[in-house]
Order: sequence, then structure tokens, then C-alpha cells
Amino acid sequence: MLRKEKRNVIVGQSGGPTAAINSSLAGVYRTAMDRGYKKVYGMIHGVQGLLEGRYVDLSEHIQTGLDAELLKRTPSAYLGSCRYKLPNIHENEDLYKTIFRILDDLEIDCFIYIGGNDSMDTIKKLSDFAIITGSDIRFVGCPKTIDNDLALTDHTPGYGSAAKYIGTSVKEIIRDGWSLETKNGQVIIIEIMGRNAGWLTGASALAKGEDCDGPDLIYLPELPFDVDGFIDKIGNMLKKKESIVVAVSEGIRTADGKYISELGNTIEYVDAFGHKQLTGTARYLCDVVSAKIGCKTRAIELSTLQRAASHCSSRVDILEAYEVGGAAMKAADEGDTGKMVVFIRLSDDPYQATTEVKDVHKIANDERLVPREWITKDGTYVTQEFITYVRPLIQGDVAPIMVDGIPRHLYRPGFQEKLQKPDKPVKFEKPAKTETKKRTRK
Amino acid sequence: MLRKEKRNVIVGQSGGPTAAINSSLAGVYRTAMDRGYKKVYGMIHGVQGLLEGRYVDLSEHIQTGLDAELLKRTPSAYLGSCRYKLPNIHENEDLYKTIFRILDDLEIDCFIYIGGNDSMDTIKKLSDFAIITGSDIRFVGCPKTIDNDLALTDHTPGYGSAAKYIGTSVKEIIRDGWSLETKNGQVIIIEIMGRNAGWLTGASALAKGEDCDGPDLIYLPELPFDVDGFIDKIGNMLKKKESIVVAVSEGIRTADGKYISELGNTIEYVDAFGHKQLTGTARYLCDVVSAKIGCKTRAIELSTLQRAASHCSSRVDILEAYEVGGAAMKAADEGDTGKMVVFIRLSDDPYQATTEVKDVHKIANDERLVPREWITKDGTYVTQEFITYVRPLIQGDVAPIMVDGIPRHLYRPGFQEKLQKPDKPVKFEKPAKTETKKRTRK
Repeated sequence: MLRKEKRNVIVGQSGGPTAAINSSLAGVYRTAMDRGYKKVYGMIHGVQGLLEGRYVDLSEHIQTGLDAELLKRTPSAYLGSCRYKLPNIHENEDLYKTIFRILDDLEIDCFIYIGGNDSMDTIKKLSDFAIITGSDIRFVGCPKTIDNDLALTDHTPGYGSAAKYIGTSVKEIIRDGWSLETKNGQVIIIEIMGRNAGWLTGASALAKGEDCDGPDLIYLPELPFDVDGFIDKIGNMLKKKESIVVAVSEGIRTADGKYISELGNTIEYVDAFGHKQLTGTARYLCDVVSAKIGCKTRAIELSTLQRAASHCSSRVDILEAYEVGGAAMKAADEGDTGKMVVFIRLSDDPYQATTEVKDVHKIANDERLVPREWITKDGTYVTQEFITYVRPLIQGDVAPIMVDGIPRHLYRPGFQEKLQKPDKPVKFEKPAKTETKKRTRK
Repeated sequence: MLRKEKRNVIVGQSGGPTAAINSSLAGVYRTAMDRGYKKVYGMIHGVQGLLEGRYVDLSEHIQTGLDAELLKRTPSAYLGSCRYKLPNIHENEDLYKTIFRILDDLEIDCFIYIGGNDSMDTIKKLSDFAIITGSDIRFVGCPKTIDNDLALTDHTPGYGSAAKYIGTSVKEIIRDGWSLETKNGQVIIIEIMGRNAGWLTGASALAKGEDCDGPDLIYLPELPFDVDGFIDKIGNMLKKKESIVVAVSEGIRTADGKYISELGNTIEYVDAFGHKQLTGTARYLCDVVSAKIGCKTRAIELSTLQRAASHCSSRVDILEAYEVGGAAMKAADEGDTGKMVVFIRLSDDPYQATTEVKDVHKIANDERLVPREWITKDGTYVTQEFITYVRPLIQGDVAPIMVDGIPRHLYRPGFQEKLQKPDKPVKFEKPAKTETKKRTRK
């Protein structure tokens, strides 16, 4: 069934970036080259950019072994990402025809998409359309999300590095909280990403160890949050401790489903997927603690850094991200389509895991939450099972390649410049057969 | 003049903690031991704790070479810090007599205080009182502050690590900002510590290099901030760039001296030294950009981590902090009093610096600001001179001692527990001559 002569591969990055997403890109590129493909194209800003005729030849970007190492250590989507959701096939068949015409013009055999839930929906729809129309292009998903909420896989690349950063930073914040005494104690509330799944917030428990008590309370979005019960707990704790540190998910909600951040006067808006953008959960709770207890408070949002802090990434995570990139490319090369690579864990400690491919129809649009039994009965901490689960994923370090005291990243020329977008859709131009140009750095 | 038989040393930490303050503590301890002192006491929470009879014998805490290495890599004040300002001598002579009685009971020869401006005021007053009363206890200051605002010294330990963390994090945030395209562009505003001095905010320029444009605008508190001019600049930049990153000091003010954070509805309060605690400068500016330009915005506060992120510390900084600890102890041992150790820079690149001691009367309560000529004419960036100045201070890394994927710190038993404070001042008890007890870890 497969072509005898291999042609080209295209790879895209989609959804929220991570510290590991570029390591998967490096893995796809390396395996495609090793398996004899001619060119590996990279979509600029995912499917959305592809539709506008934006792509690069990755061999112009990854020219040396050092480039590949830099890429693995570069945070944020090197190719640019998008939050573009394909319509259902019957809603806009023309759009699908356009994408497939572009792919045919580029002589694509394999289409690899590195992303989370919404990106797997793209793989599902494109592979469905290929089957309907008899196209032999293979579509394979490569898992990526700091949220760790993809179904059927033990975990997702990106999560381990985010968890390591969160555990490390929370520990440093707890320690900092020890330094100054306050009149009536202090409460530090740390807000961590995760709308519906508490995997990231739970990782704050990694701060706990022989040299640190860890956070005092951890609230995941899987369980309803009771503001009054929270204030009572804080009040009791302050009788015994000077400095209380609480980790909360940005997505915690009251029993009637209202986001805690909605209880204050904070700004909110809805993104392209209809997700609510939240802000100010920690700030709101600090205001309540301050008003009801009267102690000093500090709200800290880990914000963008929890997904971008390559300087504190996990070696297991960066290597596994590279591995799934290669495994996705291998699967597509061997004829798989409509699949995603997953991790199967064989043991916790020493940690051992392997990869398999699973049907993307069983993964897309499904959110994997923290199991109830991995959260304590009273809902204010994670259990030892949770820590045993996450601990192997944060092992080992990837030293950044330091130049003049600051981590070096792989630079993509002109990336930050504003694209002059046309008013109507671009007519896609088939690439001319040109020589590979030497990349010029600034 | 000096005693022939050396007795004891006491050391304290004061003011805001840093990633390097414990390295100075290790330096003081090591040098005191090498120079033949019997005991090195550590004040718990500085002079304030000392007045309440709280101190430890450091030999119970630093028992091994590994302990010393852990201490150098532990953020936040190991001994606990305080923001206690001594009254003037004539205002409360009894207080001074109490302190000196405590010091005499502990058979102290040398008193080392690691801190910033306010802590040097303590050294000044105590050394003055010693001179007035004929005490031969020597008081020497060891510089420490992320703010880098101490007079007479080229720079202060703690600043280099904070600058490295800021440069690294800002670079990662800029990169993250590239990943997703937005309809009308986006503006990310990063709020950085520094009430009056822009040394930390200026360090965001370290993100600029061959692989990154750096922040687009940098606003220091040394110059008045014009909100309208800022909005105009942002508007123009968005025509050329998708993602704008701005670094602002928490302390920026309008031409008539009003803090930008005061223009919004944010909470504020005043700390023990009468400093205004600021919050929400970035948040307020984001709200203005959002209202006037209508693009996506994100406010990021680097918050506590900029002073506590030991996992991203500068080797030059950690070693220099250790060095000034030793130099302060050496100065006191050799008879200096009322002095602070300073750095004299000999060359920028290769970097070379040496230490001297200077009269603390010329340092205390004086704030060193960023020179006007190190800020661009239009006040929206730092110059190359600034970068040349800060660059050597962030060189080299100190690998954290990783245990199970998370940095290990030196633990102090019972540290987090609430102190049962008495209603009236404690009667200081002279230490019994007991054996040094083996520390028990939890």
C-alpha cells in the first residue's frame, strides 16, 4: 500500500506551548530524516498558518547537531502554534479540500501534529477525511500538554517539566515565606494553571520532602471549593504556624459551579475554543483572607513561566518528548493513521515506560482528570499515590546551553515580525524547487 | 587593643531575603572558625530575635562540608530575617544597654550583620554606641540586597542571582509570547521589584541577544512615567510586531510623584519602615492598554521568585556572597568596626573585583540609583553601559543539589512553627555551658 519512494513530511505545533514541545519537533525531524524522507516541512502556526500558505523547510533551521540540541532546550512552539479548530467535515468540505490540495502540492506522505486535546481533534478529522476521499496521507498525533489531561496515555510530554518547575518554585516560595516574621502570620496563595484538571496544582506537593513541609493546602479543580471551610482551615493553621502556603488551581469552583475568580471583580473573556480565561483566583482568596482574618497575604501567579521555564526542565520529560516525536514519525512511516502515540508505564521506581499508538477517536476531546482517590478525603491535598505517579516524570536535569550567563535558544529569523495578512484567503503557491538557503542570523 | 584569647562571634540576617544571603552566612561561619573563634552564634530573625533571647549555635547547624554547600544553595534567610529598625540612641538608651548586655553575656567579640540599607543603619548605631560606652565589640556589615542600591559598593550580593533569574525568565516569557497569534497583537507587561532603584528592572535587558530581541520597552523608577506616551509607543509598535513585552518597575511614578499602581483600585499598605507596599502596576497598565488599544494583554509579576530562585542563581554572585561574608569576618577580627565590606570593580570582561571596607556612616540610609546616562534619552530602555555593568554579575551557574528531582535545601528544625511570644519582653538567659547537641532532622 505504501509508496515505494518516500516523499515529504509536514509537522505542526498546536495549542498552548510547553518547555518540551520543541524536543518532539526535533524527534520528528530526526526520525523523518533517518527514515529517508526528502523534506520535512514545518507549518507556521499550525493548520491555520498552513491554510495561509505559511510553512518552512526544517532543514534550513536544523542545520547542525548543535541546532538540534538548542531546539530541544528552546521553550514555546518554535514553529508557532495556533488554537484553530477545524469545523466538522460536513460543515465545510471545501476547507478540507483546500488542506489536502496544499498537502498534495507539497507531496506530503505523513502529517504529524504535536498538541493536546484540540489538536487530536484535528488529527481525527483529517484522517477521517483521508479515508473518505481515499487519500493515502497518514495523520498521526504526538501528545503535548502541560495540563496532562489527555486520555489513554500515562502522561503527556510537557507535564514533567512544568511539574518540576512548580515543585521547585513552590519550595522556594515556601522557604522565602519563612524569612520575615509578621504580626498575625501570613498566607501566601499560589495560583497554578489547570482549568479542569489538577495535575499541575497537585505537583506543588513535590515541594514536600525531608527539608520542607510542602504547601499547607492544595486545592484541585476536580472537587468543589468551599470558601468558608477554607477560611476556617487557614484560621486554625495560623495558630500553629507563622507562614501558610496554599496552592490553588486557577479553575477551582464553588459547589454550584461558579469559578472562584468570578466571585471577585476580575476581568474575564472567552478564547476561540469557548474556554473561559481566568484571572485572579489567588488574588480574590487573598482579599477574603485579609478581610476575614486580617493577616498579611500575598497572591502569586506562576503564570506563563510554568509552561515556558526551559531553564528548569526535566530530563525525563525532554527525552520522552523527543522519543514520542520519533515514535509518531515511525508510526506514520509504517502506515498508521488516525492514531496518537501514548505512554504505557511499566514501573514507578526505577521508572520505566514504553510507547504505543492508540486510536485518536478515543482520545480527542476527552479530558483525563485526577482520580478522586488520589485526592485526600477532605479535598485539601493529594495522596502519596499522586506523588508516586508524578515523581519519576521530574527526574534529571537538562542543563541549558548558557551563553554569557543566559540560556541560548534556537533563533528563528523574522519570527516576531508582524505578518502582513491579506484581506482574502491566500492562493496557495506550490513551492519552487530551489536550493536550500543558508539561514542568516541577525 | 584586641583580646589575646578570641571568644565568640554573632551573625544576623536582616531585610528582604535573597538567593545569596546564606552563602554570606556560610562565609562568615567558615572564616570565624578558621580564625580561631570558639562559637559562632546566629541571631534568629536578626536583632529583633536577639532581643527576645533567640539565637542558635551555628556549629549545630553546619556540621559537615555538605551542610555548608547546601546552605550556600538555600534561598531565603536561613536564620530568619527582620525589618526591625533601631531607635536613635538618645531615644532609647536602655534598648542599647539590653543588646550589649546580651552580647556580653554571650561573650561576643564580633557582630556581623548581613543586610541592606536599613541593616547598615543598625551597624552604624551599634558601633556608635560601642564607641560611646567603650565596648570593644566590633560591628561590621556584610552587604546584601537584590535591589543593588547600597552606596559605595560596585554592586551587592544577591543582585547578580536576581538579575540572572530576571534575564532568563523575561527571555522565556518573550519566547512564549511568540507562540500564539492574536487578532490585534498582544502586550505582556512584566512587573519587577524595585521601589526607587531600577537595577532589577534594567536587568530584563539581559534577555536581549543574538537569539532574542529582548523586552521592547523598559521603564525604571528613576524617571517619571508618562501613561499617554506609553500607550502611543505601544500602538506604534503593534503595527510592526505581534507580541510586545514591556518590563516595568513596581515603583514607576507619574511626573507628579504618584505611583502608577495607585492610579488603579489596588490594595496598598505601609510596612514597618514606612515603605509603601505596591501591587498591580503591570495589572493597571494592562487594563489601560486593553481599554485604549483593545488588544490582548497579560500582566506578570515576577514576585517572590526573583529573590528566592536559587535554582537559577549566578555562580559569581554565590561565590562573591561567600567572599564578603569572609571579608566582613576578617575585618572584624582585625579590629574594624562601623564598617561595611564593599566591592571595587577592576575590570568588566574578563571580570575582576576586589573587596575593601568602608565607613558605614557613609552607606547607611543612602540609596544608589541607576545613573541617568545608563538610561536611554527617551527613558524607555537601558544603555549598553548598563548591560556591560550587569553582565559579569550573572556569569556561571551553581547547580542545585538535586534530590528526587527537586533542589535540596539545608533544613532548620522547627523553623516554621509559631513562636509562643510572651506578653512582656523576655528576660535574657545566659547560655549554659552545654555540649553541642547533634541536630535531629525530621
